[in-house]
Amino acid sequence: MERSEEINLRIPGPTPLPPLVRQATSQQMINHRGLEFQSLLREVTNGLRPVFQTTGDILLFSASGTGGMEACVANTVSPGDKVIVVSIGAFGDRFAQIAEVYRCQVVRLSFPWGQAADPEAILRELRSHPDCRVVFVTHNETSTGITNDLQAIGTAVRSLGEKAPLLVVDAISSLGAIELPMDEWGCDLVLTASQKAWMSPPGLAMIGVGPRAWAYAARATSPRLYFDFATTQRIAQEGYTPFTPAVSILYGLRAALKMMAQEGLPNVYARHHHLGRKMRQGLCGLGFKLVANDAHASDTVTAAYLPAGYSSSEWLERMSRDHGIILGDGQGSLKGKIFRVAHLGYVTDEDIDHVLAAAEALLREGPKNR
Amino acid sequence: MERSEEINLRIPGPTPLPPLVRQATSQQMINHRGLEFQSLLREVTNGLRPVFQTTGDILLFSASGTGGMEACVANTVSPGDKVIVVSIGAFGDRFAQIAEVYRCQVVRLSFPWGQAADPEAILRELRSHPDCRVVFVTHNETSTGITNDLQAIGTAVRSLGEKAPLLVVDAISSLGAIELPMDEWGCDLVLTASQKAWMSPPGLAMIGVGPRAWAYAARATSPRLYFDFATTQRIAQEGYTPFTPAVSILYGLRAALKMMAQEGLPNVYARHHHLGRKMRQGLCGLGFKLVANDAHASDTVTAAYLPAGYSSSEWLERMSRDHGIILGDGQGSLKGKIFRVAHLGYVTDEDIDHVLAAAEALLREGPKNR
Repeated sequence: MERSEEINLRIPGPTPLPPLVRQATSQQMINHRGLEFQSLLREVTNGLRPVFQTTGDILLFSASGTGGMEACVANTVSPGDKVIVVSIGAFGDRFAQIAEVYRCQVVRLSFPWGQAADPEAILRELRSHPDCRVVFVTHNETSTGITNDLQAIGTAVRSLGEKAPLLVVDAISSLGAIELPMDEWGCDLVLTASQKAWMSPPGLAMIGVGPRAWAYAARATSPRLYFDFATTQRIAQEGYTPFTPAVSILYGLRAALKMMAQEGLPNVYARHHHLGRKMRQGLCGLGFKLVANDAHASDTVTAAYLPAGYSSSEWLERMSRDHGIILGDGQGSLKGKIFRVAHLGYVTDEDIDHVLAAAEALLREGPKNR
Repeated sequence: MERSEEINLRIPGPTPLPPLVRQATSQQMINHRGLEFQSLLREVTNGLRPVFQTTGDILLFSASGTGGMEACVANTVSPGDKVIVVSIGAFGDRFAQIAEVYRCQVVRLSFPWGQAADPEAILRELRSHPDCRVVFVTHNETSTGITNDLQAIGTAVRSLGEKAPLLVVDAISSLGAIELPMDEWGCDLVLTASQKAWMSPPGLAMIGVGPRAWAYAARATSPRLYFDFATTQRIAQEGYTPFTPAVSILYGLRAALKMMAQEGLPNVYARHHHLGRKMRQGLCGLGFKLVANDAHASDTVTAAYLPAGYSSSEWLERMSRDHGIILGDGQGSLKGKIFRVAHLGYVTDEDIDHVLAAAEALLREGPKNR
């Protein structure tokens, strides 16, 4: 991965676009009912498959990640269904919110912000709710910089055998940066979005659909057409999307997938792992306190408490104005207490160095708006 | 409007992108929670307002036109609601399909493909269904190349006074090319999509929401989060979108709106009117029979019956291979009988001349795959 221009957008999505992706995105439109589009869709789907590590279907929807989350809910539940939502932050809570909008009986299994989900606690909850039909879980919680132990969670769910509920995974800010072998880990639905590890503009949600999920989709009575899995899969088999797709984002994603294949997926994962550790070690070395403990710290986004005396707005503004670095604010209960820095997608060692040097400079100068 | 490159994509969307739009689309990502994004959203909304001609809200959703149609249904109906869907072709039928998915009691008022809707028939239907809550109507039916007399339809609906149902308009392939003064014509919801007259990539639906529609949105119990009008409006008032927006398409749309403002909206409408008439007159002069009669022929897309001896596939393939022109196939009951040519968005006199010259050449050569 080479860094060819000054990019300082360090929020957890939209992430910076590599020059090749920007160029690809600007290509002229084509007929979305023609051979050229069939190739585009095939190349994108084939490029995604080794990342999802699934023999199932990979469906594309022209929508943001939240649209994809809603698709995962609408295609698996009917009103009154009992579901367990495992939440460790803002995006777990969003799954619960959507499930409530779809009139599920939602059992919230929430862990304190800053902690990972405990697979044993999930298993206990599953056992005390044998009528639970679906478990929703976040792989990588962007609001706190924590990666759940999805392998262990998958094992816990699968330990219930035939009666195991469906396991639906929000991997929006992990897939493509953190390895997630969907089939091997027993995940039935895995969802991601173009503007994260995929180095592409926002507007495309990609969903891996395993065989058990299809049985749920056939039964789910929640209304949906635009996000309907069966409709999308039927037309995908003809090489198309049922509704006009976000062609320019597909162009970008195709280019990004080629870059990822050229780098090699193991190298992509290793780079994110290295950069995540480097960011955490660097911030700790400067005296920052991280939200996550190291065992569950995310390789794609780091959340750290603001240094003493700095308000969130002063810290973010001076990082931006003095150093050209755009960081993320805290969300929910952590708003005003933390900042978040993403190392996700098109990111290099120099980007991390740049953030750490800027943080060090601001610490040295100290807060000015007292 | 100048034509600066060879563009022969003559399907009714995605339409060709002007160079300025392609360039804009390729810009680097920004923080969608920052000042720069607030400006982008404001400029796009302000650019759309004179086209919608509304004092109501203009909401943006990262989705295709069909996603926007579903948003219009989900925010206005509850299961069991009686609605009338006026259909003159494939896209009217789609509104009925979505309303059925949302468990409405759907009264289909369908007119034969190739005809416009009769406002008096609509009024009769409304009178015989006084419990109808919403009327869905297509302004410009892309499958047949017909523009409904929306002003007369609006007058018919409004003639019921206080008891008038909500009027929801699919203006996906008209708004921005054919004048539609939303408020003046009594339309409560008007929907369009970026890849049509707006000369931008697909992936963005834009919806004008009038005051009566808000009362419906507050009552509608259909589940929705991603497409929820109230959530979108609340965050729009802060200058943002509730979920990560399709930033690159917004860049493109901003550039396209500037081009439209520079050309002047009356000139944009006049250009489409001129080009539509030129296409129809040219095709008729070559002996083609059009699907639409002239009184209701669309200024944005023309549907014509295939010339004798030509199969749809031979006609479309030779237009593409020999002349580089991509035309649309027939849809539904007209599949295999007609072809469709769009003159929508970034289109000039030369584009029309090119299509007519190619059609003349193919007619002269005659079919070869007998």
